[in-house]
Amino acid sequence: MRIDIITVLPELLKSPFEASILKRAIEADLVEVHFHNLRDYTTDNYKSIDDTQFGGGAGMVMMVEPIDKCISALKEQREYDEVIYMTPDGETLKQGIANQLSMHENIIILCGHYKGVDQRVRDQFITREISIGDYVLSGGELGAAVLCDAIIRLIPGVLGNETSALTDSFQDNLLAPPIYTKPREYKGWKVPELLFSGNFPKIEKWREEQAYERTKKLRPDLLDE
Amino acid sequence: MRIDIITVLPELLKSPFEASILKRAIEADLVEVHFHNLRDYTTDNYKSIDDTQFGGGAGMVMMVEPIDKCISALKEQREYDEVIYMTPDGETLKQGIANQLSMHENIIILCGHYKGVDQRVRDQFITREISIGDYVLSGGELGAAVLCDAIIRLIPGVLGNETSALTDSFQDNLLAPPIYTKPREYKGWKVPELLFSGNFPKIEKWREEQAYERTKKLRPDLLDE
Repeated sequence: MRIDIITVLPELLKSPFEASILKRAIEADLVEVHFHNLRDYTTDNYKSIDDTQFGGGAGMVMMVEPIDKCISALKEQREYDEVIYMTPDGETLKQGIANQLSMHENIIILCGHYKGVDQRVRDQFITREISIGDYVLSGGELGAAVLCDAIIRLIPGVLGNETSALTDSFQDNLLAPPIYTKPREYKGWKVPELLFSGNFPKIEKWREEQAYERTKKLRPDLLDE
Repeated sequence: MRIDIITVLPELLKSPFEASILKRAIEADLVEVHFHNLRDYTTDNYKSIDDTQFGGGAGMVMMVEPIDKCISALKEQREYDEVIYMTPDGETLKQGIANQLSMHENIIILCGHYKGVDQRVRDQFITREISIGDYVLSGGELGAAVLCDAIIRLIPGVLGNETSALTDSFQDNLLAPPIYTKPREYKGWKVPELLFSGNFPKIEKWREEQAYERTKKLRPDLLDE
């Protein structure tokens, strides 16, 4: 899989891709991630990528031309399954979307900044608009990093233990059950005795019940889906 | 405001705090962000912070002791308004939560990793559990960065133009209207004529209508809130 990220702040994105699971996936050639600095596609001496809003109003708008040039240059080299724009008013990211995107060959992710992009970018180039949640961030870069992390960890071979991703929250519309590790007792706080019983069918049943109870209490909406 | 982030991967968090708005907010002393490497609070020679699950199952669990030591050391130095745990089964982050947290003095953010933390950590130390959305990430670090960005940009003085944050998506439960900037025409794609009319009350009305229509089409759920 290949991911091309278009951004005005490639330096912001650096460290999440140089640590942990994303780093390992890139080093193992399971995914290629390329950053494209939008300023490299500007035509004026000031390398401007934004300008004021037509019709007035606070905040700058990202211009259509540099984005067109960058996306077009990428599309000349290969076909893309999706050109995604990270924006708070996009479709809300859910685990199912991450599962789906993880099966693509090539995707472009455009990070919005300032007040966002000129509407013509959305009308002409974008095939999918994604939001990571109902809150506003200072730019699309963290959203892009989150989207990449959610996708890349699903690519076969990326996680050491393949069963691990399947028992995550959301994969079965249930939250995960409580988990415990050593020590058995700490400051008087004990681990439930059942977990030491060796009765694995009973432990499995307890976990399912706990997952269901937790979901019912904290996220009843997930049970309706 | 002071934010203490407890993590096993401080290097992953580096670049988002060294660029753009977060960097400027930190340099202007509007916020202090401190990273605490959980491995500095371990007691064995291997600096272990995780171990296998009691009762069996894939994935490692973060142990209670190093987390206790780190949180306790911080609490000895000052009072905290919240000790937040980033976890996919927490309360889903919304703009309103970010608004609320941005008014606190001191918060701790604990980043989960692997399968998550020992349940006793959640029972004993955590005052609030937050998820950035219904998807699984390889760790809580990106979630913590997202939460910090959402909070920090709301602190007075952080954004250059204070009216800018108030016209963002979600602050009035409406998505933002379409926006345009130069050039007026690009490859035949035109900006709506109204925006050049100079009739600002009419432009404002058009924007409100567009914001409402867009919300009704893309996110009708926001209108019910």
